[in-house]
Amino acid sequence: MNAPDKFSQLMRLTREPLPASRKIYVPGTQADIRVPMREIMQSNGEAVRVYDTSGPYTDPSAEIDVRQGLPLVRSRWIEARGDAEAYPGRTPFALDDGLKHGESETLAALRLQAAGLQRTPRRAKAGANVSQMHYARRGIITPEMEYVAIRENQQQAWMEPYQGNAEREARLAGNSFGASIPKVMTPEFVRDEVARGRAIIPGNINHPEVEPMAIGRNFLVKINANIGNSAVTSSIEEEVEKLVWSMRWGADTVMDLSTGRNIHTTRDWILRNSPVPIGTVPIYQALEKVGGIAEDLTWEIFRDTLIEQAEQGVDYFTVHAGVRLAFIQLTAQRMTGIVSRGGSIMAKWCIAHHQENFIYSHFDEMTEILKAYDVSYSLGDGLRPGSGADANDEAQFAELRTLGELTQKAWQQDVQVMIEGPGHVPLHMVQANMTEQLQHCHEAPFYTLGPLTTDIAPGYDHITSGIGAAMIGWFGTAMLCYVTPKEHLGLPDRDDVKVGIITYKIAAHVADVAKGHPGVRARDDALSKARFEFRWMDQFNLSLDPDTARNFHDETLPKDSSKVAHFCSMCGPKFCSMKISQEVRDYAKAEGVSDTQALSAGMQAKSQEFRQRGGEIYIPVKAVP
Amino acid sequence: MNAPDKFSQLMRLTREPLPASRKIYVPGTQADIRVPMREIMQSNGEAVRVYDTSGPYTDPSAEIDVRQGLPLVRSRWIEARGDAEAYPGRTPFALDDGLKHGESETLAALRLQAAGLQRTPRRAKAGANVSQMHYARRGIITPEMEYVAIRENQQQAWMEPYQGNAEREARLAGNSFGASIPKVMTPEFVRDEVARGRAIIPGNINHPEVEPMAIGRNFLVKINANIGNSAVTSSIEEEVEKLVWSMRWGADTVMDLSTGRNIHTTRDWILRNSPVPIGTVPIYQALEKVGGIAEDLTWEIFRDTLIEQAEQGVDYFTVHAGVRLAFIQLTAQRMTGIVSRGGSIMAKWCIAHHQENFIYSHFDEMTEILKAYDVSYSLGDGLRPGSGADANDEAQFAELRTLGELTQKAWQQDVQVMIEGPGHVPLHMVQANMTEQLQHCHEAPFYTLGPLTTDIAPGYDHITSGIGAAMIGWFGTAMLCYVTPKEHLGLPDRDDVKVGIITYKIAAHVADVAKGHPGVRARDDALSKARFEFRWMDQFNLSLDPDTARNFHDETLPKDSSKVAHFCSMCGPKFCSMKISQEVRDYAKAEGVSDTQALSAGMQAKSQEFRQRGGEIYIPVKAVP
Repeated sequence: MNAPDKFSQLMRLTREPLPASRKIYVPGTQADIRVPMREIMQSNGEAVRVYDTSGPYTDPSAEIDVRQGLPLVRSRWIEARGDAEAYPGRTPFALDDGLKHGESETLAALRLQAAGLQRTPRRAKAGANVSQMHYARRGIITPEMEYVAIRENQQQAWMEPYQGNAEREARLAGNSFGASIPKVMTPEFVRDEVARGRAIIPGNINHPEVEPMAIGRNFLVKINANIGNSAVTSSIEEEVEKLVWSMRWGADTVMDLSTGRNIHTTRDWILRNSPVPIGTVPIYQALEKVGGIAEDLTWEIFRDTLIEQAEQGVDYFTVHAGVRLAFIQLTAQRMTGIVSRGGSIMAKWCIAHHQENFIYSHFDEMTEILKAYDVSYSLGDGLRPGSGADANDEAQFAELRTLGELTQKAWQQDVQVMIEGPGHVPLHMVQANMTEQLQHCHEAPFYTLGPLTTDIAPGYDHITSGIGAAMIGWFGTAMLCYVTPKEHLGLPDRDDVKVGIITYKIAAHVADVAKGHPGVRARDDALSKARFEFRWMDQFNLSLDPDTARNFHDETLPKDSSKVAHFCSMCGPKFCSMKISQEVRDYAKAEGVSDTQALSAGMQAKSQEFRQRGGEIYIPVKAVP
Repeated sequence: MNAPDKFSQLMRLTREPLPASRKIYVPGTQADIRVPMREIMQSNGEAVRVYDTSGPYTDPSAEIDVRQGLPLVRSRWIEARGDAEAYPGRTPFALDDGLKHGESETLAALRLQAAGLQRTPRRAKAGANVSQMHYARRGIITPEMEYVAIRENQQQAWMEPYQGNAEREARLAGNSFGASIPKVMTPEFVRDEVARGRAIIPGNINHPEVEPMAIGRNFLVKINANIGNSAVTSSIEEEVEKLVWSMRWGADTVMDLSTGRNIHTTRDWILRNSPVPIGTVPIYQALEKVGGIAEDLTWEIFRDTLIEQAEQGVDYFTVHAGVRLAFIQLTAQRMTGIVSRGGSIMAKWCIAHHQENFIYSHFDEMTEILKAYDVSYSLGDGLRPGSGADANDEAQFAELRTLGELTQKAWQQDVQVMIEGPGHVPLHMVQANMTEQLQHCHEAPFYTLGPLTTDIAPGYDHITSGIGAAMIGWFGTAMLCYVTPKEHLGLPDRDDVKVGIITYKIAAHVADVAKGHPGVRARDDALSKARFEFRWMDQFNLSLDPDTARNFHDETLPKDSSKVAHFCSMCGPKFCSMKISQEVRDYAKAEGVSDTQALSAGMQAKSQEFRQRGGEIYIPVKAVP
């Protein structure tokens, strides 16, 4: 494929708004705080507002040129704080893109494509600290914090009609396992959570395109999607559309797990076009720089890679600092050894050198780098279990306790931290993961991969893990890393990414409902109401995936008339229970009595009339062949 | 389509054994007890034995003619008991197939097709009771009970190699919430469970084709798949292949929810070709007999339908006896009213007549019919919640308590009972369903539909409900009724049925593992071991859906050589953590030390050697383009 073709392909980014949806912007206290939300308009005139991760891509009025990048939402805020400065930045190398010296032509072409995306990096002035945690601890409410508060509230006004039933609300009251979720999110609450380390707002000062969001136990449960090229397949162009595609369906953050060639440039494209925080695993690129030989890694190469990526704007780094030399022997009797890529690289390095993990031993120095850009830590669980058999073993928990120690070290420098968790965990052992994490990691946000609750269903691991994810989200996990149907088998394609994300949106929402997050059940209620009232299009439009819902309905009843039918293909007109329920209610209304009255008192007298009216009481609809 | 075409289509039943699998029969104490299992052969010579619901269809040596029906597994046992007799049976009507008098030609053609499937019905002799519960309570261990015991054990011998690690087994010990699961299932244990009502063995004496199975809290969690034609689409032929297809992927029982025309004949085809118990909702057919007018239903028509279906061999009946007149008003303030088809039919009848539900008021008489054939009750939850908002409300629990009373009435006549449960229930409210059921229904097996843990994902309700199903299965639910991706939207096709079943096999297995069912984790371990050892084909073959696992792998790495590759497309060769883990172990072995020794003591000295051997330590495999 030649270059122009690739560009034209790129311009085919998915940009249509979701059905019946429009983008609205909720204003904050200053003009440039404009918090995006998605408003879904129902056929009955009621609007439903939902959290919107899709960025400017779903705003038809936004002009987007992927070669120039997105608008800089946060630039003015960052500049106004006056504690950062532009500087020339690190000199780029061909090796950053995995290229050799003889490939300068390839490199030149690559860099030319990304020319419009080059920015002068910024970092904290000498002695300054630009982390959100640092501001929070000094009592400063940043625009980012206010943005998050507005965003988390989802404009609760629309939810009120669904919450008018006191008996229902009491019956459905959630159980948050000791979380402290307020009725209304205030900027001050957000500040306090960040100050305590109980939430993070990932946002590198070199990623001003980010629409701020928070990850923490007392906020809505978030999900992460992984993208990335690989040594074996995929291209840069695919990855940028995967980003847009992932955000469209609900990814709150995206990790770029690229390896192989062109990773530096891929990251420029992704960061400059991403309104969601981007995470990476810097050791992957460092390993490329040493030709894939783990033993040849050094702190200096790793450090250089951290700075390279921090200057580009990566928002959080997964670092496997907890894979300590002494823990590696604990994996020897495991069913599946070490299954984290980063964990196994560090384990190999430790054994080859018989030295302590250099990421662990340089932790404070690394933290100094992160605070200069406000990169958040995602402390990786390099020793997470790769099979149910290895769940909750000493290797896993020894590392977790180390991550707790490192959390406190990071917090000493006001650097934001979240903790990564498993992995493969049988259902009855899921809760212990959350309990141990809360105990040892001081309520730093937990960020888990599933967990997968059984090993016997490759091809369906979005489901085996979605079960565990819903559960651990309920217990208090702040962000769930998605798993696609291709897990263990191959690289996810576009459809796999979507299925993985929708599955995880389900898990996150199920957890939010179970925790009793204020108003969050209102979307369930709106959809159920639409379902009961046979507002088919509303039912589709309110769902997590309107396209699939509508397509599935079309497969059996493709006629437009069936979209207003008061029955569906499952039961047909005669057997529709919702229809019968409604007839009973309609009857009661027509008789001028309340439902309850009609159905309890005086039914004897009315039964005769009801029968007379019966026989053909179905609301006539166009016949469906 | 003309008749011969339909027959040839029928003969294309899915009959290939699953990959690397062969059917074995484990003998019991008498020659005609031959319990089928599926043996999966691995490339390392180890065999894995799994529970097999697929019936003779996956046995290449079985000769199957769907026009004649399956071999009669249980006939000799039933006859030997000497307490039943053949009798002419009820005279069939055109109306049984939803046909009118003018359609005698259609009827004749229909009956001709099914001619080879007509059997003389049997029923209990006067004063006798042929239920498994009746035998159990008199201390008799039937061949059915012995069969179940052998089947549930799954030949545990093969599992032992995976359970040799005492630390691991202690760490993974399940939590069964007070269930009483024995280490080894004995026929006496099965008898005792059936006698207590804590398990049922559904098996109408007119369905001798059944391979006996048990549903109960102390047995493996079972799943049910629904099939059935409908007024809107589908044909008889499709339904028989759907049965075979459902059992292939793991359906333990199948419910025939047909409505509309040809239902009597459809049932003949299904029953005579089904080795799994078949359940129905007789009110559906009764409603057809009165032209779809719920108000015109009578006990006599319903009773006639029960006998019609009992003579054909239906193994369990869903009856909505708990939808009492007084409870209907409790649904008036609900978000989604009554969503059970049977429940809404009975509610409509009750209101129209202002009389108590005739199924409730004739319960004992109905029980007498069931005991004459050993039909089990599945006491329907006609008032189950149809949205999260309605979960665990008074309507639902009032009915549940009534089902508990009816359970005791059924048990007075030694008739087997299970209890149906919801529905739509937020995650944090799932456990209360099980607790209430255990308390009010005296440990009669619970049989739930999901529950769906959120309402916002039509198109993905196999997942919203799979989450709830895994959880309620763990808490003690004995059978999970599947939900397909088409739930709420349309009729499931072949692929939907498969996805629904695999999702529910996952949920059931996750629950079994969490409960600590003996040996059940061994399949996880075998698959994880295969994964760690890069035995790709074994990994696929041990999975719940080998075809999908292999196809997904092929999409990225289609070459056969990649099936022996010591890496996969996700990470590529350089980043494979399992590979690195193995290298560390291989190294240790080559040096003649144990893994633990190599990794703890003396590593300093060895690190130099390790580096020297390094550089290119990847096992060479054919290059993948």
